[in-house]
Amino acid sequence: MIMSTPRKLGLAVAQMGPVHLADTRETVVARLVEMMREAKGRGAEFVVFPELALTTFFPRYWISDEEANEKYFEKQMPGPATQPLFDEAKKLGVGFYLGYAELTPEGRRFNTAIMVDQTGAIIGKYRKIHLPGHSDHKPEAPFQHLEKKFFEVGDLGFRVFDTLNTKIGMALCNDRRWPETYRVMALQSAEVVVLGYNTPSWNIHWNEPMHLRTSTHLISLQANAYQNAIWVAAAAKCGSEDGHHMIGSSVIVAPTGEIVARAISEEDEVIVASADLTWCENFRNHVFNFAKHRRPEHYGLIVERTGAGDPIA
Amino acid sequence: MIMSTPRKLGLAVAQMGPVHLADTRETVVARLVEMMREAKGRGAEFVVFPELALTTFFPRYWISDEEANEKYFEKQMPGPATQPLFDEAKKLGVGFYLGYAELTPEGRRFNTAIMVDQTGAIIGKYRKIHLPGHSDHKPEAPFQHLEKKFFEVGDLGFRVFDTLNTKIGMALCNDRRWPETYRVMALQSAEVVVLGYNTPSWNIHWNEPMHLRTSTHLISLQANAYQNAIWVAAAAKCGSEDGHHMIGSSVIVAPTGEIVARAISEEDEVIVASADLTWCENFRNHVFNFAKHRRPEHYGLIVERTGAGDPIA
Repeated sequence: MIMSTPRKLGLAVAQMGPVHLADTRETVVARLVEMMREAKGRGAEFVVFPELALTTFFPRYWISDEEANEKYFEKQMPGPATQPLFDEAKKLGVGFYLGYAELTPEGRRFNTAIMVDQTGAIIGKYRKIHLPGHSDHKPEAPFQHLEKKFFEVGDLGFRVFDTLNTKIGMALCNDRRWPETYRVMALQSAEVVVLGYNTPSWNIHWNEPMHLRTSTHLISLQANAYQNAIWVAAAAKCGSEDGHHMIGSSVIVAPTGEIVARAISEEDEVIVASADLTWCENFRNHVFNFAKHRRPEHYGLIVERTGAGDPIA
Repeated sequence: MIMSTPRKLGLAVAQMGPVHLADTRETVVARLVEMMREAKGRGAEFVVFPELALTTFFPRYWISDEEANEKYFEKQMPGPATQPLFDEAKKLGVGFYLGYAELTPEGRRFNTAIMVDQTGAIIGKYRKIHLPGHSDHKPEAPFQHLEKKFFEVGDLGFRVFDTLNTKIGMALCNDRRWPETYRVMALQSAEVVVLGYNTPSWNIHWNEPMHLRTSTHLISLQANAYQNAIWVAAAAKCGSEDGHHMIGSSVIVAPTGEIVARAISEEDEVIVASADLTWCENFRNHVFNFAKHRRPEHYGLIVERTGAGDPIA
C-alpha cells in the first residue's frame, strides 16, 4: 500500500493555431520559441510541438512532388530557419519533440519527429508508420489527405529514448488510434509517449459525425495511456488553415487515463503538467504487470494477419 | 458518402445485483430467466449475462480446492439448475452469453463463458486468458482475489462465432483492459464482443483511487470498441455481495466509442440497444481499413516479449 516517492517530469504541450500558406518558417519558429519560453517559465523540462509544425498541413493540397519538396520539406535539421529553436532549447535547458517533413539526401520523404535533449542535441528520430489517407487525386473531395503520396511508411520502428531521466517514446497523429503503437513502446519500458497531430475536422471519406473527430481522439489517448501505464502528451496544430479547419483539444493524459491538462483554444496555447512517473509503476506493478499477466501465445494474429480475415476454425 | 442499409442486432445486457453466499443456483437462474424475458420484450435477440453469474464471486474467499469445486463449479452445462435458462432461450428464440466456473471431467478448472444460440444450443466456449489477482493466501488483505489459484489460463484462444447473422467474440472481465483481446477478434472480423465482469470496488494491491475502477472500465471499453470498429456489450455482477462491493456501470458501446446504453443501478437491470452493424463497416472501410493501414512488421515485440524490457538499441 506504500506509494513510491514522487519522480516528476515537467511536461508541456505547445499547441499551435493555424499556419497559413503565406506564413514563413521564421514566423513559425518564432512562435515555437515564444511557447518554449512560456513552458519553461511554468516549470516544463520537455515541450511537445505538433506534427508538421513548420508549415501548413500541405497533404491537403494536390501539388507536384517537386513543388512539395521545395516548399514543405526540410533538407536539414536544424537548418537556418530552425536553428533558433535549438539555440533556445540549449539556453533554457529544455528538451523538445518536433514534427516536420523530412527529405533525405537520397530523396526519400518521411513524416518525421525528432527528440531533442536539453543541450539542443537530437537524440532520437521517428518516422510515421501509420500513414492515413490516400495517394491518388480525389477531385470530387473538398480537400485531399495525401499522406500516402507524399510520405513513405516509416522505417525506424517505434522506439524509446532516455532523456531527463525518463524513457520517452514518439508517435505521430494517426498512430495514436492504433493500440500497437503504444504497446510496442510500453514493452520497451516507455514512461511517456509524445505525439503531434493535424486532424481535419471534416472526414472526406464518409459521412462521419463531426463530434467524433474529437471524442475518438480523446478516448484513444486515455485508454492507451491507462492500458500501458504511461503518460501521453499530444499536441495539435489546429484551427482554420486558409479555410481548412482542424481539431484542437491538445491534452496531457496520466496513466490513470485521466486528462490532467487540456487546451481550450484553437490557437497557440501552452499546457503543462507535473507528470509523476511513479504512477506508471503503480499500474505496472499490479494490474499491468506484463510479465505476470500477458499471454503472447494467444496474440499471434496481431502479427500474422494484416487485414481482417475469417474466424479461426 | 453513401451509408449502407442498416443491419441491426437487438443486443441486451442483463446486469446482476449481488449473489450472496446463501443464494441457491435455482434462485439465480430464475433471476436470469426473468431478465431474459424482459430483454426479449424490449427487442433483444441476444442477451449478455455476467462472469461467474451463477454464484457469488468466490475467488475473494480463501477456501480449499475441494470446497470450491463442490460449491462453485459446474460439472455439466446445462445442468439441472441451469436447464431452465436454456429452455427459456429456445422458447423465446433468444441467444445468450453466460459466464460460470467450469470443472472438466479431468478435474481442470476454468473461468468460462459460453455462447448459446436461439435454439438453446451451445455454439461456442471461451476460457478466460487474462487471469488477474494471485494464487497465494494474503491474510493481511481485506479479501482475496484468487483467480490464479482457482483457474488455469484459458486454452481456447480468442475466437469468433457466427450467430444471428453476426460475428460475435467473447471475453471475460480483466480481458477487457488488454487491447490484444479485442484486436485478435477484430482480425477475425468480429462485429460484436461480449463480456461479463466482477470488479471489486476496492483494489487490495495498492492505494488506487476508487473512482478509477469505473473510469478505467469505461475508457477501455470505449477506445477498444472504436479502435476495432466493433460493438462491445459488458455485463457486471455488482453491488455488495455479503459486504464485498463491486462496480456496476454495465454498458453497450458503439463502434464510435460512444456509450449508447448504461445501467444506472447496482441491481438486476436490463439495458438494450439496437446495434446497427453497418457502423462497423463505416470505420473498417476507412480509418480502420486494417489491410491498408496496419504495419505488422513493426508490431513484433507484442508477441516476442511478455514483460517489458529495455528499449531496442
